[in-house]
Amino acid sequence: MTRPSLTRLSLALFATVFLAVVAQSQVTPAAWSPETLQQLRQVQQAALADDYAYQQVAHLTDNIGPRLIGSSQAAAAVQYVAEELRRLGLDVTLEKVMVPHWVRGEERAELISYPGQAPGTTQKIVVTALASPNNGTGADGITAEVVVVNNFAELAALPADKVAGRIVVFNYPFDERMTAAGFALQAYGEAVAYRAEGPAAASRRGALAALVRSAGSADFRLPHTGLTEFPAGQPTIPSGAITAEDAALMARLAAQGTVRMHLLLTSKMLPEVESYNVIGDLKGSEHPEQVVIVSGHLDSWDLGTGALDDGAGVAIAMEAAQVLKQLHLQPRRTIRVVAWMAEEMGVFGGKVYGKEHATQVADHYAAIETDLGAGHPVGINACCDEAMLPLFEPLGALLQTSGAGIVRASEETGADILPLKVAGVPTFSPIQDVRTYFDYHHSAADTLDKIDARQLRENATVIAVLAYALANMNAQLPRKPQPVPEWMK
Amino acid sequence: MTRPSLTRLSLALFATVFLAVVAQSQVTPAAWSPETLQQLRQVQQAALADDYAYQQVAHLTDNIGPRLIGSSQAAAAVQYVAEELRRLGLDVTLEKVMVPHWVRGEERAELISYPGQAPGTTQKIVVTALASPNNGTGADGITAEVVVVNNFAELAALPADKVAGRIVVFNYPFDERMTAAGFALQAYGEAVAYRAEGPAAASRRGALAALVRSAGSADFRLPHTGLTEFPAGQPTIPSGAITAEDAALMARLAAQGTVRMHLLLTSKMLPEVESYNVIGDLKGSEHPEQVVIVSGHLDSWDLGTGALDDGAGVAIAMEAAQVLKQLHLQPRRTIRVVAWMAEEMGVFGGKVYGKEHATQVADHYAAIETDLGAGHPVGINACCDEAMLPLFEPLGALLQTSGAGIVRASEETGADILPLKVAGVPTFSPIQDVRTYFDYHHSAADTLDKIDARQLRENATVIAVLAYALANMNAQLPRKPQPVPEWMK
Repeated sequence: MTRPSLTRLSLALFATVFLAVVAQSQVTPAAWSPETLQQLRQVQQAALADDYAYQQVAHLTDNIGPRLIGSSQAAAAVQYVAEELRRLGLDVTLEKVMVPHWVRGEERAELISYPGQAPGTTQKIVVTALASPNNGTGADGITAEVVVVNNFAELAALPADKVAGRIVVFNYPFDERMTAAGFALQAYGEAVAYRAEGPAAASRRGALAALVRSAGSADFRLPHTGLTEFPAGQPTIPSGAITAEDAALMARLAAQGTVRMHLLLTSKMLPEVESYNVIGDLKGSEHPEQVVIVSGHLDSWDLGTGALDDGAGVAIAMEAAQVLKQLHLQPRRTIRVVAWMAEEMGVFGGKVYGKEHATQVADHYAAIETDLGAGHPVGINACCDEAMLPLFEPLGALLQTSGAGIVRASEETGADILPLKVAGVPTFSPIQDVRTYFDYHHSAADTLDKIDARQLRENATVIAVLAYALANMNAQLPRKPQPVPEWMK
Repeated sequence: MTRPSLTRLSLALFATVFLAVVAQSQVTPAAWSPETLQQLRQVQQAALADDYAYQQVAHLTDNIGPRLIGSSQAAAAVQYVAEELRRLGLDVTLEKVMVPHWVRGEERAELISYPGQAPGTTQKIVVTALASPNNGTGADGITAEVVVVNNFAELAALPADKVAGRIVVFNYPFDERMTAAGFALQAYGEAVAYRAEGPAAASRRGALAALVRSAGSADFRLPHTGLTEFPAGQPTIPSGAITAEDAALMARLAAQGTVRMHLLLTSKMLPEVESYNVIGDLKGSEHPEQVVIVSGHLDSWDLGTGALDDGAGVAIAMEAAQVLKQLHLQPRRTIRVVAWMAEEMGVFGGKVYGKEHATQVADHYAAIETDLGAGHPVGINACCDEAMLPLFEPLGALLQTSGAGIVRASEETGADILPLKVAGVPTFSPIQDVRTYFDYHHSAADTLDKIDARQLRENATVIAVLAYALANMNAQLPRKPQPVPEWMK
């Protein structure tokens, strides 16, 4: 074979590269100007160094406390966040949301007879009520035999007389090994089906009450509360969450003989209450009508102080505004900080926003939510069209300098922005280390100390950079409407 | 130099080894006959395969439940263990012990005013009473300002008017890094000083009540109960344990301004109760009057079910008898299984035994106790004369075949056998992996599921082998009386 000259080789190489660059720039024009990229680096550095988000979540949890939907604390939190966003210079509006007002009341359970029992004694069962309309036991409580099932199939296989009039205990364990292997959301999904649907399934079989092994992964006798749902028209029954320890205890005792329990849950649903989504706009310079939402939900369960779920998410969203104001950066599109109300009882705030802004969906360029705590972030979830991923490569490269460079397609982008997602708005969330999130989630242990200040800053950095990047992006993002889930209808 | 012939070298070597063997056999004659060593291997294999100990701790915790001193459950546990040891064929006696009967009552705390508080709201503080004579608040509770100190020195440095009439919060953290590094007992020792002595120190300064950050290492909003002590003549004050989370919360809020708390602890001390040490003798064939004690304590705190502390220790001791009976092995000395009563409130059973058997101390060849849970054992603690360690080398070699070959001098051999130890009786305990023990100890989470069945068998194996080895030992163990600690006087 002949040997080509070096000059000819160079020319050929040059031509190839040139054509490739031209080709690429036709497919994916630069999403961000060099100036914006420089500003994004400033945002990244400023957010990594700022403790504003930590101060906000500390105030929400330590000073205001748990923010149960409909509570005085939730109302105080609305006022606090609105005032704080005004102080930052945002245009703040409160969007009215009528919310359920469920209150916990007393909760107590004990085994009153069981095999091998010492005379005159009982065994305490740690219980917490699950939230649902009208599912208390009344002030006297109820007393009934316990029947333990490991899953829905076992419940279905029981003869009618083994369920009717009894307290059904669902003993489905949270899969800790799945969680440790990096699949916490999947483990949660498996377990939470029993919290959400178990009591209704027990009610259909004529059970008197249902207790569900907590959808949580730690073994510290800690019950995890949450919502449980009864389809319209189906009788509600008293419903509680018990600890992994007590579910396993009852399974062992029931295998030995008859176990009877006294259960007291005086939770009840009060009349609905007026509450609010807090909306703060940092107006865009070029397209003020176009909106990038950055958000978390302000309500929390009442057992802990709602630090991980979701004080952190609200504080991270507030930090995005704070850092841009600190740097005097005005985005091209409007960045809209939203603190959603009443996510935990069924995404009330998110649904109201979706309806109220239905005619402006086309102007919603993107929406971001953080609602999985404050664990170290490794990148960004983007939904729902994979075709947009190449556009985000420069952003991934930038975020990788602080350890969060993954950009992946994922549908895990937050419940409150789901009404926008189904309408086709591109949605985003941080990809976080959630290995310990479900240890604390919905429990008394969801408190400020579970938030590592540095990791919170890392999350705020990802979200601030992403929000500003979306607000200044030179591209139309592909919009791919999603099917409407059953619970949103 | 000349080269010695191989024959001359061999002869010299032979002579050296021969003399060394003779010399060693004079210093440390074989502690066990070949027959006993063979039997010890049988004991080891049988114990590793047997689930008797697990069944016992399951019954004590699941069926009987927590065994608070003076309670019906403690009484039922005495009867159960006595009956079970009789069933195994032991000579059982109940040794009367008059015990304190403290009852927990209601316990509730909340912050009623603090900086940034939302109108009409409070913050819940998770509290559990510490056991002590007469230290409740009365049915109405008390309301006072909180003062937070990080340690005794900070308390001492406070001016009198900052302590008098206030609720002192001791915020001394349990050192988790010390624990992770293998020094859990040291971390516990540091922290538990505040539980034991903190309320008395606060009382001396005129405090109205004292709350102590729990001497425990997990972060799941879990209070750890225990004994707190007031020197005779000093006024007792209401005393509770709070969670790490709530201690830290109060420290943060108190740094911002005035924090006031309402505290309700209706714990009280009832008249003392007759209870018992359960003593079961497996009589020795050659020296029935000589005794090797193998033991754990039967009482527990009431929040959990006392699985790790110390149902496991009792079950392990019972297994030692069960496995010898199963193998039809009669020890040369008497093996005495003891389930001690009322360790948690001040070693009442151990002290009674020490007094009642004071004239037979010389006949107590050795005493073993297991009271640090059921974590994987790596060997044996031996107290208190290091000179005995070489005798145990063959036993270490045997136990190393199941991973527990360390034999070390250590004073950590259990509180109940301390009266024997101070009198010079050699004492022993397993060396266990205790890295997670103080996560659960004295808390609601000390339940059966914290015991790994395999690790429990490993512990029972160490103890059964050690007990039989001591009962059949061809040696006088050196006796080294120890100083009497203050609390034993």
